Amino acid sequence: MKKKNIMNNAIYAQSGGVTAVINASAYGLISELAQLAPRTKIYAAQNGILGLIDEKIYDLSQTKKSLKLLLESPAGMFGSCRFKLPTIDNSDFYENLFKILDKNSIGYFFYNGGNDSADTCLKVSLAAKKLGYDLYAIAIPKTIDNDLAVTDNCPGFGSVAKYVGTSVREAALDLKSMCRSSTNIFVLEVMGRHAGWIAASAELANSEKNKYVHKILLPEVRFNEDKFLTGIELDISKYGFSVIVASEGLRDQDGNFYSESSGKDSFGHKQLGGVAPKLADLISKNLQVKYHWAVSDYLQRSARHLTSETDMEQAIAVGRMAAKFALNGRSGVMPVIRRLSNSPYQWDLGEGDLNDIANKEKTVPDDYIDDSGFGIRLEGREYLLPLIQGECFPRFLNGLPAYEQLDLHLV
Amino acid sequence: MKKKNIMNNAIYAQSGGVTAVINASAYGLISELAQLAPRTKIYAAQNGILGLIDEKIYDLSQTKKSLKLLLESPAGMFGSCRFKLPTIDNSDFYENLFKILDKNSIGYFFYNGGNDSADTCLKVSLAAKKLGYDLYAIAIPKTIDNDLAVTDNCPGFGSVAKYVGTSVREAALDLKSMCRSSTNIFVLEVMGRHAGWIAASAELANSEKNKYVHKILLPEVRFNEDKFLTGIELDISKYGFSVIVASEGLRDQDGNFYSESSGKDSFGHKQLGGVAPKLADLISKNLQVKYHWAVSDYLQRSARHLTSETDMEQAIAVGRMAAKFALNGRSGVMPVIRRLSNSPYQWDLGEGDLNDIANKEKTVPDDYIDDSGFGIRLEGREYLLPLIQGECFPRFLNGLPAYEQLDLHLV
Repeated sequence: MKKKNIMNNAIYAQSGGVTAVINASAYGLISELAQLAPRTKIYAAQNGILGLIDEKIYDLSQTKKSLKLLLESPAGMFGSCRFKLPTIDNSDFYENLFKILDKNSIGYFFYNGGNDSADTCLKVSLAAKKLGYDLYAIAIPKTIDNDLAVTDNCPGFGSVAKYVGTSVREAALDLKSMCRSSTNIFVLEVMGRHAGWIAASAELANSEKNKYVHKILLPEVRFNEDKFLTGIELDISKYGFSVIVASEGLRDQDGNFYSESSGKDSFGHKQLGGVAPKLADLISKNLQVKYHWAVSDYLQRSARHLTSETDMEQAIAVGRMAAKFALNGRSGVMPVIRRLSNSPYQWDLGEGDLNDIANKEKTVPDDYIDDSGFGIRLEGREYLLPLIQGECFPRFLNGLPAYEQLDLHLV
Repeated sequence: MKKKNIMNNAIYAQSGGVTAVINASAYGLISELAQLAPRTKIYAAQNGILGLIDEKIYDLSQTKKSLKLLLESPAGMFGSCRFKLPTIDNSDFYENLFKILDKNSIGYFFYNGGNDSADTCLKVSLAAKKLGYDLYAIAIPKTIDNDLAVTDNCPGFGSVAKYVGTSVREAALDLKSMCRSSTNIFVLEVMGRHAGWIAASAELANSEKNKYVHKILLPEVRFNEDKFLTGIELDISKYGFSVIVASEGLRDQDGNFYSESSGKDSFGHKQLGGVAPKLADLISKNLQVKYHWAVSDYLQRSARHLTSETDMEQAIAVGRMAAKFALNGRSGVMPVIRRLSNSPYQWDLGEGDLNDIANKEKTVPDDYIDDSGFGIRLEGREYLLPLIQGECFPRFLNGLPAYEQLDLHLV
C-alpha cells in the first residue's frame, strides 16, 4: 500500500459498554487535537470500528452545536459496538480497512474502550506496521468495570462507584426505616462479570458512624451459601436489617456463575435473571424475613447525573494525552493513570503498552478483601475513595437533565 | 376517660413506605408548631404507630443537632411501620392507646403516610370522639404511588417521577449507543402495585426531538402480549431500539398480576421476581434480540439526590398546614394539594376529609392513556411535568450525600 506524505487526518471511535464520561474523553481528544494540530481534520466513526468498516463516518467540522455538549451527555454520542477484529493475518480485512483510512487521509486512529477495544487498537497498530501504512493508533481507556491492566483506575468507574455508593446509602436508610415491621433485607445487583470493583465500591456507603452495607459479594470470592445466610441473620439481630451488594459475576463453589447454577423451570427453560433474584430465592427458602431486591443494570453505567468530578477530569485528561501521544508519533499505546498518593489524592498520566493491556483483566486484589470474604478492608477503601470525589451535575431543563445531542453529519 | 384542660403536646409519626421527602413534612410540621405554639412539646413515635403502642417515643426537645437535617435525609428519620389498626369497637386497644397519649398530655396527633395511614388516622380520630378524649388527629399526605384521593398529587411522587424520567433517559442513551451490534431492548421495572403513576412518569423522558421511552405498561391496562411484541419489533425497526417501563402491578388479560402468572419452578416454588425478568423472558422466547433489564425497587423511592424542588416545597407545606389544622381544632382531616393551573404551575392547599381518602385509590385516568394503551397523552404529560420541576441536591461529603441522621432520645 502506498504511503502518502500528508496523512494527518484523525478518526475517533467508541467501543464496548458505554459510561457516563466516555464522551468527555472524546471532548479532551478533539479539543487538544484542534489546538495542537489545527489543520487535522477530525472524524468520528459511527458505532465504533463498524462505522469505519461500513464507511459511516461523521465529519466533526460539519457539526454546528458546541462540542462542549460532549461533557454533558452520558453513553456514546457517536454510537458504540461490540465487535472483535480478525487476527492480523487476515490481509483482506485489513487491506480493506486501510483503503478506507487512506481514502480519508487518516494518519491518527483513536479507539476509546476497555480490554477488547485495546485488542482492536493493538491489531490495527500491528496491521498498519505489517502493511507499511503510516498510522498512529492510540487506545483511550474507558470501562466501568475498572479491570484494565497497567492503569491505576479506568475512566468511567469512579462515576459508577459514586452511583452505587449513593444508591445503596439511600436504600439502606429506606430499609432501616422499614425493618421494624416490614422488610429486613435488601439485595442490590451491580455489574462486574469478572471483576468485583463495582460491588466493592458499595463499601463507600459505610461511614465511621453508620454501617449501611453488610455483605459485598465479589466474583473474586467463591460464594458460600451457609456462611452468607448465617452472616445476614447476625446482621439482622445486630442492626435490624442487612444490605447486600452482589456482583452479577458472583461464582459458586465450583467456579460457575451463581446466577446460572439454578435448575430449569417447569417448562424446561433456564431460570431467569440475575444474581439478585437468585439470592432472594435463597433467602426466601431459608429465612423467615421479608426482602426486597433491585438490579441497577444500565442505570448505573449511564448515570451522568451522579458523575464524579475526579472521573470527569481523568476522562478528559486521557483524551488530551492520547492526542499528544499520536502527534508525538507513538502507536500501540494507551494513556494510563498513575496514582502518586492517596491522601491528598495525586495522579498523573503515563504511557502503557497495549501488549500489556489487551485482553488482560485486573481483579480486586486479595489484600483489599477482608477475612470474611464479604467486606472491603481499609486499603481497598483508601483506593476507592479518591475516585468518587467531587460533583459535576449536568444542566437540567424542565426538570430533567438536558443531555442535548450533537448534530452529526456523515461524510 | 377523663379530659384534661392542658393537653397541648403533639406527637408525629411516619407510616408505610418511605419517600425522599417525608422528613421534609416532619420539618414543616415541627417548625410551624414551634412557631405557632411554642409551649407545645413535640414527640415523634419510633416506627409509626407501633412506637406509640410500645411507648417508644422520642422527645425532640432533647435533640441537639439541627432539625434542618430532616430536609436532607431520605427515608423515615423516626422509623416507619406497616400496621393496620383494629376497628374502633376494639375498646381495649384504643383505651390503652389513649392512656399512653394521656400520660404524655398529647392533644395533637399527626400521622404521615398514604392510604393505610389515612385509615389509621381516621380510626384514631373516631376512637377519640367515641371515648371522649380531646384529640386533634391530622393526616399528612405522603406516597410515591401518587394514589391518594382528593389531593391533586402526593408529596413523594414528584421526586420518584424525576428519578424515573432521569434514569430512563440515561438508560435510553446507553441503549441507543449499543443497539447497532449489541442490546436492542431495555426493560425497567418500577413500583406501583395498583396505580401506574410512576410508570407513567417515564413519559417525561421523551422530548419533541427524541423518543426515548417506547412502551409504558400500566396496571390500568390489561397486558396484551402479542400487541406488545409487535409493538417493540416496530420500535426496533424504526428507532433501532425499544425502551420499556413497566409497573410492578401490571396485570394479565384475566386481571391477575403478570409477575405471578407464570408457572412454578422445578422445586414447586412460585417463580421469583418481578415484571422485568418476566417480560425479558417473553421477549427472549419470541424475538431474536439482545435485551437488558433493571429493577429499581428501593433505589427509586429513596433517591433524595434527585429530589424535585416542587415536591420538596409541597412536602414542607403539607406539614406546616397540618400544624395549622390541628391548632385550629380540626380533626380527621388531611391537607390536600389543589392545582390552580398547569402553566404556569400554581397550587394551594385545602382540607380533605379522611372519610373520602382512607382506603381509596386514585389510578391513572383513561384520558391520560393513549389508544395503544402503551403511551401517555399530552394531558397526562401536562399533569406530570410541573411535579418534577427544580433541583435541590443534598449536601455531599467525601463524594457521597451526607444524609446525617438526627440524635434521637427516647422519653
